[in-house]
Amino acid sequence: MTRVAAVQLAPVVGDLSGNLDRAVAAIEEAVAEGAELVVLPELATSGYVFASVDETRSLALSPADPAFDRVAAAGAGAVVVLGFAEADDAGRLFNSAALVDASGVRAVYRKVHLWDQEKRFFTPGDARPPVVETAVGRVGVMICFDLEFPEWTRIAALSGADLLAVPTNWPLVPVPAGERAPEVQIAIATARMNKMAIVCADRTGRERGVDWTGGTSIVDAEGALRSAVGDGTGTAWAELDLLLSRDKRQAELVDLLGDRRPDLYGPLLEPPQAERRG
Amino acid sequence: MTRVAAVQLAPVVGDLSGNLDRAVAAIEEAVAEGAELVVLPELATSGYVFASVDETRSLALSPADPAFDRVAAAGAGAVVVLGFAEADDAGRLFNSAALVDASGVRAVYRKVHLWDQEKRFFTPGDARPPVVETAVGRVGVMICFDLEFPEWTRIAALSGADLLAVPTNWPLVPVPAGERAPEVQIAIATARMNKMAIVCADRTGRERGVDWTGGTSIVDAEGALRSAVGDGTGTAWAELDLLLSRDKRQAELVDLLGDRRPDLYGPLLEPPQAERRG
Repeated sequence: MTRVAAVQLAPVVGDLSGNLDRAVAAIEEAVAEGAELVVLPELATSGYVFASVDETRSLALSPADPAFDRVAAAGAGAVVVLGFAEADDAGRLFNSAALVDASGVRAVYRKVHLWDQEKRFFTPGDARPPVVETAVGRVGVMICFDLEFPEWTRIAALSGADLLAVPTNWPLVPVPAGERAPEVQIAIATARMNKMAIVCADRTGRERGVDWTGGTSIVDAEGALRSAVGDGTGTAWAELDLLLSRDKRQAELVDLLGDRRPDLYGPLLEPPQAERRG
Repeated sequence: MTRVAAVQLAPVVGDLSGNLDRAVAAIEEAVAEGAELVVLPELATSGYVFASVDETRSLALSPADPAFDRVAAAGAGAVVVLGFAEADDAGRLFNSAALVDASGVRAVYRKVHLWDQEKRFFTPGDARPPVVETAVGRVGVMICFDLEFPEWTRIAALSGADLLAVPTNWPLVPVPAGERAPEVQIAIATARMNKMAIVCADRTGRERGVDWTGGTSIVDAEGALRSAVGDGTGTAWAELDLLLSRDKRQAELVDLLGDRRPDLYGPLLEPPQAERRG
């Protein structure tokens, strides 16, 4: 069993050092309570509602930044996934997430499906979601709106992810009384269709007029919502058996991935020939 | 607005003529109450839990069977989608669904993703879900377990379906108190991810030891569950604006289909080159 923590924070746009301090403190606290995997929100170090590209750039980090040494140290051997604004050597900006463990930054994923105004600030990624063999199992990483592209989540499952870590910033949308946020419903269905656990760490707090869902949720590989935070900052906890994700049988003659028909819709896992690069 | 009826029946395995009578009566009743689109369950004419291939064959129909003239007459101009066991000229058996309107059978879809023991009785289909231009809009058709393959539902959306009609037979599975059946959660998420209405007509009643979910549900293009039947036979009703499905924008710079990245996972809509037939 793996003890999983999904941390709901309230980053402050522009406060890079304060956001980093709060993220590090949250990781330390989760690890002190036994977390083996800690997921934090999208753009946890920068905030989200940027006023300009220049502001975004001023809040962006390189994966080589010492900030990630602090994250690794705070993780103390646990696996940590957190979102950050990334600048590359060419000055391009990405909405990224890092998977960090005791050995440092293991993978950086650049959000491929940018949401709305993010397109004004970030370059979309052009690589698949990484699936990293970690101490707790195979952890896939994608970010927020990516989760709403079933091709993308399927690719993570086909790549062997036992658990998908999804840093998010979900702007609040109206839902009927008693209903979950649509993004949480998508996480539940996606876990079920792929037999893959999904951990969404959302943000909270109001930022430049935007309210957030605070939808932090841990969904197991059967599609059961095991834990959520609700309003305010806080941490969702669950003990997950990640090995469950490796048996895709759902009945005697049912295999959720094996029953796919790639002859009719392509393998997904291989990029289309015509578009393959390099 | 389109008045949609999803009919939950309790077919009796082996009683082809009785099942057909009950289906026709249900269509007539729905049309009398104003239905413009009527969806009935999977294998509504045959029942589901077959004892042998011979039994399945004895309950199978050709799409040219006069049974479909009765369905068209009962529909009285409405669009009707219902599941049936199909036999082709070569004696192959398919788990199929017909879309029928005043002009007769407009399309027959053969279930591609067969569930569990169905593989013992049926040949899987090898064609995409049809999307038929009807009097109420573009209606796509697939069957039960097909809905749990996000590639398949995406193909229906990319093919222009305003509404997906899904005859189903969902075997009852345990769910935590207060939770919806997993298949209903998948319908809700799928509608939301594709901005496409989804109508699932399920069966009820116990058949040869199998209990059914009775999960008949109408989900609108925003992913809101608008109507369900619950226990027993009955009909779910909703008024749906099917034109909503044609605008995939979800925010100023968000288009649920346009934001896809076919360069990274293929077009889905075109079959893979290497596998293309004929």
